[in-house]
Amino acid sequence: MKCSKCKKDAVIFQRYSGMHLCIEHFTKDFEGRAKKTIRQHKWISSGDRIAVAMSGGKDSSAVLYFLRKIFGKRPDIEIFALTIDEGIKGYRDPSAVFKIAESQGVKCHTASFHEHFGITLDEIVKEKGDRNSCSYCGVLRRQILNAYARELGATKIAMGFNLDDEAQSVMMNVLRGDSERLLRKQSPVEGFIPRIKPFSSIPEREVALYADLYIEEFEERGCPYSHNALRADVREVLNDYNYRHPSTKYALLKLGDELKEGTCSDSTKISRCSVCGEPVFGECHTCRILNDLKKTITEEKNDMEI
Amino acid sequence: MKCSKCKKDAVIFQRYSGMHLCIEHFTKDFEGRAKKTIRQHKWISSGDRIAVAMSGGKDSSAVLYFLRKIFGKRPDIEIFALTIDEGIKGYRDPSAVFKIAESQGVKCHTASFHEHFGITLDEIVKEKGDRNSCSYCGVLRRQILNAYARELGATKIAMGFNLDDEAQSVMMNVLRGDSERLLRKQSPVEGFIPRIKPFSSIPEREVALYADLYIEEFEERGCPYSHNALRADVREVLNDYNYRHPSTKYALLKLGDELKEGTCSDSTKISRCSVCGEPVFGECHTCRILNDLKKTITEEKNDMEI
Repeated sequence: MKCSKCKKDAVIFQRYSGMHLCIEHFTKDFEGRAKKTIRQHKWISSGDRIAVAMSGGKDSSAVLYFLRKIFGKRPDIEIFALTIDEGIKGYRDPSAVFKIAESQGVKCHTASFHEHFGITLDEIVKEKGDRNSCSYCGVLRRQILNAYARELGATKIAMGFNLDDEAQSVMMNVLRGDSERLLRKQSPVEGFIPRIKPFSSIPEREVALYADLYIEEFEERGCPYSHNALRADVREVLNDYNYRHPSTKYALLKLGDELKEGTCSDSTKISRCSVCGEPVFGECHTCRILNDLKKTITEEKNDMEI
Repeated sequence: MKCSKCKKDAVIFQRYSGMHLCIEHFTKDFEGRAKKTIRQHKWISSGDRIAVAMSGGKDSSAVLYFLRKIFGKRPDIEIFALTIDEGIKGYRDPSAVFKIAESQGVKCHTASFHEHFGITLDEIVKEKGDRNSCSYCGVLRRQILNAYARELGATKIAMGFNLDDEAQSVMMNVLRGDSERLLRKQSPVEGFIPRIKPFSSIPEREVALYADLYIEEFEERGCPYSHNALRADVREVLNDYNYRHPSTKYALLKLGDELKEGTCSDSTKISRCSVCGEPVFGECHTCRILNDLKKTITEEKNDMEI
């Protein structure tokens, strides 16, 4: 297939936009959307020191590449990499992350479970089994990431989460009825470095393509302890449903943001319809429908009389 | 199978409770839960005049039967039936609803699209096709129901919605990202008669069984214009997922209530952990995990030393 914007070979078909895109136009579209996301959330401003949380996988490597490409020449913005060594033998070798960071010309810092907590994930699994390893690891990793980024003077932590990750997270919180987490506001908290997610509105497969195009080598293996059955289940349900209703992942992303903003509307917005006098929330749908029907019928009558 | 509570034959297996129940124990359990729902929401109190919105189908007929059985002898509570004649030839014959109401010894009132709006649903479909008939009908029916119940002096409108209906509604609003509808508060509004949904925490199949047991004859046909493809899709997704995670429908019901209550938490709840000093939301999960690990390791050491 050819690119919908030029004559070159297309590398991807975006089902939701109906467009085939070549490397150049895909890249322009991709980076444009990531920049728009950053602008919308006012995520980056002059003086920022951005710690990119690197796992060495496609998403975080692509975020590092993207941020360097867009903000790398800005003297008022600093970018560096930060990787957590959970202590999983044969996986997530920090030296691989160092190599990616080096290729992007940024410094890379490592913090390890062993040094910080005195225990590695391998040891935790040995003690506790691997049933809850993901939730243990998640809690500890989030804490060390925040503490170490703060120590290094970071003002933002950039995460690789893509649209699929975000939509899945909203959906998981919904399906377990976790209103507290859905409504939790994200106002600034002392000691807590704000997270930014430049790719949060970009589908997983496009982030994967972007990484394939621009990152020479990234970690492709999954964590040996990872078997988050619930997320895998939600991912499948969501991918299926999204196939039939292609804007669903975006709707979930928007929903997640709006619930957090907590713009709780209330019934004071209810007023009386000036025509029928009934209580209505916003526009009176009854009168709209009836007017519309009246119009249709009148037009038909006129047609018949002419 | 035998009832888990006595020796009689079971009529249903509740997967979520693990119990087989006979007619008597099923009825007791069913009505107990509906009563609990009413108490929790403070839905019925002395002086109430309850209009039961009757379609003549299983859910609304069962609600009428239930309310009559529980509150029928209370002199301070009045119950009557209210049915809407949308004007669909050969479907929802008001006289069938009258028969059910009569068998329960309550008055039945009818309001019709024809009288109220000067047009029937058959005529609307003739003008507009049946693509949006459900949403036209929904808007008009809600309006006429409220206006007529108010005219009749009702203080509450009882609806037949069951757990499946409620969970599907929350899910539909989630999947289309409708935060406004999810967060909309339900404070009292002048002219708007509050809805009560006694069966909102009871699965559809149990309401169907209850209706089979106690209602002689109810409308079993679906509306000829009904083809709400989105709800059917969501119903299937939800039933599948709920089979694997049996508390999901309850979680969605709870979520819907909590979002409406709008108890927006905020990050002021964040404090510093007294042990590690990191910002935490509630309990410090890091310290909990580390303490737990320390305990496990110490116990193992002691075991080895003994």
